[in-house]
Amino acid sequence: MSFFLNYKMVKANELAKQQREISISEFFAKNRHLLGFDNPSKALLTTIKEAVDNALDACEEAKILPDIFVEIKQVKEERYVAIIEDNGPGIVRAQVPKIFGKLLYGSKFHRLRMSRGQQGIGISAAAMYGQLTTGKGVNITSKIGPNYAAHYFSLHIDTQKNDPVITVDKEVDWSLKDHGTRIELELEAKYQKGKRGVSEYLRQTALANPHSKISYKGPEEQLVTYPRVINELPKEAKEIKPHPYGVELGVLIKMLQSTKASSLSGCLQSDFSRVSAKVADEIITKAKLRAKSRPKTIARKEAESLYEAIQKVKIIAPPTNCLSPIGEEGIIKSLKKEFDAEFFAACTRPPSVYRGNPFIIEAGIAYGGSIEKDGLATIMRFANKVPLLYQAGGCAVTKGALDVAWRGYGLGQSKGALPQGPLVIFVHIASVWVPFTSESKEAVAHYPEIMKDIKLAIQECGRKLGIHIRNVVRAREQKQKAGLFEGYIRELSNTLSELSGNEKGEIEEGLKHFLEKKLPLINGEKI
Amino acid sequence: MSFFLNYKMVKANELAKQQREISISEFFAKNRHLLGFDNPSKALLTTIKEAVDNALDACEEAKILPDIFVEIKQVKEERYVAIIEDNGPGIVRAQVPKIFGKLLYGSKFHRLRMSRGQQGIGISAAAMYGQLTTGKGVNITSKIGPNYAAHYFSLHIDTQKNDPVITVDKEVDWSLKDHGTRIELELEAKYQKGKRGVSEYLRQTALANPHSKISYKGPEEQLVTYPRVINELPKEAKEIKPHPYGVELGVLIKMLQSTKASSLSGCLQSDFSRVSAKVADEIITKAKLRAKSRPKTIARKEAESLYEAIQKVKIIAPPTNCLSPIGEEGIIKSLKKEFDAEFFAACTRPPSVYRGNPFIIEAGIAYGGSIEKDGLATIMRFANKVPLLYQAGGCAVTKGALDVAWRGYGLGQSKGALPQGPLVIFVHIASVWVPFTSESKEAVAHYPEIMKDIKLAIQECGRKLGIHIRNVVRAREQKQKAGLFEGYIRELSNTLSELSGNEKGEIEEGLKHFLEKKLPLINGEKI
Repeated sequence: MSFFLNYKMVKANELAKQQREISISEFFAKNRHLLGFDNPSKALLTTIKEAVDNALDACEEAKILPDIFVEIKQVKEERYVAIIEDNGPGIVRAQVPKIFGKLLYGSKFHRLRMSRGQQGIGISAAAMYGQLTTGKGVNITSKIGPNYAAHYFSLHIDTQKNDPVITVDKEVDWSLKDHGTRIELELEAKYQKGKRGVSEYLRQTALANPHSKISYKGPEEQLVTYPRVINELPKEAKEIKPHPYGVELGVLIKMLQSTKASSLSGCLQSDFSRVSAKVADEIITKAKLRAKSRPKTIARKEAESLYEAIQKVKIIAPPTNCLSPIGEEGIIKSLKKEFDAEFFAACTRPPSVYRGNPFIIEAGIAYGGSIEKDGLATIMRFANKVPLLYQAGGCAVTKGALDVAWRGYGLGQSKGALPQGPLVIFVHIASVWVPFTSESKEAVAHYPEIMKDIKLAIQECGRKLGIHIRNVVRAREQKQKAGLFEGYIRELSNTLSELSGNEKGEIEEGLKHFLEKKLPLINGEKI
Repeated sequence: MSFFLNYKMVKANELAKQQREISISEFFAKNRHLLGFDNPSKALLTTIKEAVDNALDACEEAKILPDIFVEIKQVKEERYVAIIEDNGPGIVRAQVPKIFGKLLYGSKFHRLRMSRGQQGIGISAAAMYGQLTTGKGVNITSKIGPNYAAHYFSLHIDTQKNDPVITVDKEVDWSLKDHGTRIELELEAKYQKGKRGVSEYLRQTALANPHSKISYKGPEEQLVTYPRVINELPKEAKEIKPHPYGVELGVLIKMLQSTKASSLSGCLQSDFSRVSAKVADEIITKAKLRAKSRPKTIARKEAESLYEAIQKVKIIAPPTNCLSPIGEEGIIKSLKKEFDAEFFAACTRPPSVYRGNPFIIEAGIAYGGSIEKDGLATIMRFANKVPLLYQAGGCAVTKGALDVAWRGYGLGQSKGALPQGPLVIFVHIASVWVPFTSESKEAVAHYPEIMKDIKLAIQECGRKLGIHIRNVVRAREQKQKAGLFEGYIRELSNTLSELSGNEKGEIEEGLKHFLEKKLPLINGEKI
C-alpha cells in the first residue's frame, strides 16, 4: 500500500476519533439566538415571557384565576435579577430540578392542546442564559398547598449532560402564600422601555388574558397593576388526537407500530380524531387493505397506500374544544380597560384547520377617543394569548392587516401600508400548534388557511367600524348643516311670520323642534 | 383539608405525571423549519446542501481535491431520490450509523476552526425528513481506501431515542472508486429551477470552491459539469483555542473547573489563545487573584473579577490560521469561468474579530460584457464557501452592498436600492463561527464588526471598478470627439495647405497620426 493510500485510511480513522455527541444544552448555549436570547435586552424580555407563560398555563390547568407579580431589580450595569411569582398550583418537589435545569423537558410537547408553552425549552434556556452570563444558578420556591411546606431550590445546569445540578434544596417558610411558585434569576441584560420592553409585554399579556391580574415593578419604577376584568376562567382546552389529514407518512408508520389497537380499523378509530367505523372502512377499502390486519404487520408500502387513501377520503374537521379563545366579550372588555376610545368591535371566527391542526382567529379594534390620531394604526399580535413583540414584518398577522382594503371602511391607506388614523388592531391566533417562523416564537408563518381567517376576522371588525365611521361622518356633516340652518332660524321666522301672519316666536320654536328631531344619534347620545 | 386545597395538591401531582423528556429528534421533527425543511422545494435543496457541505469538508480535511457528483431522480409526483457521491476519505464503518442516524453528533461543534458544517445536525436531519415523508431510510456506501472493502448501510432514525436503527449492513463491491462516500435518500420534494434551485446552488458552490469539480444531473436534464479551475487545495484551516474576549463568564467558570493546568496562570496561558505569561500576570493582578491558585478552587465571585479583568487588559487579536479564505486569485478565476464580463476585481480583507471569533471578509465583482445590463446588480452571498440562497433581505451582506455609495463609482443607484447595471457582487465571510440569523443558515447576523468589513471589501472592489468605468467612459467620449475631428481632417488639411503652402496630403497624414497617438487605450487595446 502506498503512502498516499495509507494516508487516506488514516484520515478516515482520524476523523472518526473526533466524532462525538453534542448535548442539547451545549447546542442551545451556542445557538441561543434561536431561543430569543440574541442580545441583553431581548434576553431579559424572553426570560420574563417564558416564566409568565408557564405561570399562566399552570394556573389555567389547575383552574386558578392567575395573580402574577413580576419584578426586575438592577444589580449593577448590565446585570439584573428577574423575579416572577404566581399563585399557581406549585410544582412537586421532585419535578423542580428537571423543569428548570434540563432543556427539552416538559408536559406540553406530546399533546395536542392549546397552551402558551410548547416545547419544554423556554424556562430552562433562561436559566442557562443566566448561568452563562453571570455564573449564577436559578432559585425556585414552590408550594403545592396550604398544608404543605414550601421547598426552595438553587440549581445549575450541567450543559454537557443537560441535567440539573442542585446546590441548595431545603424547606422554607412561605406562609404568605397558599400555593404558587417564585423564580429568581440573575442575568446579563439591558433594561429597555417602550415598544419591545417588559412593561409593554406585560401590558399586552394582561390585555389578552382578561381573567388575570398582573403586577409589575420595573427598576426604579412605580408598581403598576393590571386588574382582572373577567372573574371567570376561560373555557378549558381539551386534549385531542391527531387528525388524519395532519399526519405524515413517517408518523403514520410509527403510529401503526406503537398502537394498542389490535386491528387496523381499531387503530384508525382509536388513535385519530374524527374517524368513525364507517370512515375507517372507507379508508381501508380505498387502500386495498384488510380491516382486521394487525397494525404492526402493515408494511411500509401498505402504509403508503393507507396514507394516500386518507387524503382521498372526506373526513370532518378536527374537534375544536382543544382551543380556548379569548372571546368577543373578553377582547372588548380588555380593549376598553386599556384604551379610552370611542368605538370598539371584536370578532371570534369559527374554528378552521391547517395541516390537520385546528385554529381560531380572533380580532378586535379600538377606534378614536384618545388614541393617537396622527400616523398609522397600531397592530397588537397574540399567539395562544402571548403577545408577539418582535418580527412584525415577517408575521402573517401584519400581512393580513395590510391586505385589508381599509379605504372601504372610511380610513386613509397608502399602498402596502397600514391604515391611517386613531386605530388599534388586535389579532389573536389560538391553536394546538402555532406555526412560528422561528423557535424564538416571534412571528406566525404564512399558511394560506391562517392568512385567510386573519383577513376575514379583521374585515368583520372593519365593516362594523366602517358603519360607525360613516354614521359619525354623516352625523358630523348633518350637524354642520343644522348649525348653518340654526343661524337662519330667527330671520326665517320673521319672514314666515310676515307671510303667514302666524306668531314669530311660535314659528321659531317649531323650527328648532324640527331641527332637533332630525339631528342624528351617535352612540345613543345626541351630539 | 378542604376539597379546594386538596384539589390543588392533586393538580400539582397530576401535572408532574405529564412531565417527560423530549428527544432532540422529536423536537426537530416537529420544528423542521428551524433546519431549512419548511417546504418540499426547500427540503430538497437543504438535503443536497448538507451532503455537499459534508463532502467538501471531508475532502479538505483529508487533503483531497474534491470531485462531487449530484443526481436528482424523480420517483413520482412530489417524490425524489437525491444521490450525492464524493471522492472524500470515506467514513469508517462504526461511525456511519451515528453520523447519518443521530442528530447532534459530529466532529465540528466543539472546535474553533472554519468549516461548512457546524453542528452535527444537517445530514441526519435530512435523513429524518426523508423518513418522515416517505417512510424510507437513508442508504450510504462508503470506502476508506483501495485495499478496503466498501460497506453499505441502510438505516432509520428512532426519533424517540435519537439513535440509528440499521436495517442493512453489508460489504459491497465499489471498485470504481478508491475512496469516497455515496448517499441515497428518498424524500417528498418539489423540484425547482431558477434562483433558489439545486442547480443554482451547485453553480455558486463551484464558484466559491475553485479547487472543486462538481457534476450535476437534474431530473430530465443534461449532465452539467463545473470544472476545477485551481489545482491546489486551499490553505488548511487550523484549530485554535478560544480568545479571552469571546469567552463569557459562565464558560470561563466551566473552563476553570475542567482545565488540566494546575495553576491559574497556567490555565490562562494553555487554554486560551494569545495569553502570554505577561498577559496572564496582568489579568491576574487586575483581578486581585494569585497566579498559583489552583483553578478548581476559584470561586464564582473570583471568576467574575477575572472576567472583568480580562475585558480591561489589552490582548492581541486571535490567530487567523483557523480560516481558509478563497483568495483574490481564486475569486477572480471563478468569476471569469462563470461570467463573460469585461472587468473583474477582488479583495480579501485582513482578518478581523467579533465576540472573540476571527473572521475574514472577501469580495469580488464582475462587470459589463454579457452580464444583464438592465435592472439591478446581482449579489452572491457565501459563508464558509457555502452559497446562501434564502433570506437575502435579512442578511448583513445585502445590507453592506446597499450601504455602499455606488454613484461615486459611476453607477446609478436609487435610495435604499442596489446599484444599476451589468454588475455581479460576490461576498464571502469566512469564520470559525459564522453568526447565522437562524439554524437553517440562510443569512448572516448584523454584527457591527462584520458589517464594517463587508462594506470595506465591497468598496475596495468598487473603487477599482470606478477607475475602469471612468476610463471607459472617458475613452468613449474621447473617441467620439476624435471621430468628429476626423471628419474635418480633409477640409482642415485643404485650408492649412492653402495657408502654409505645405503639401495637402502630408498635412492630412500628420493630422491622422496625431489623432491616433491621442486615442486612449482600453484594456491595453485601442478602441
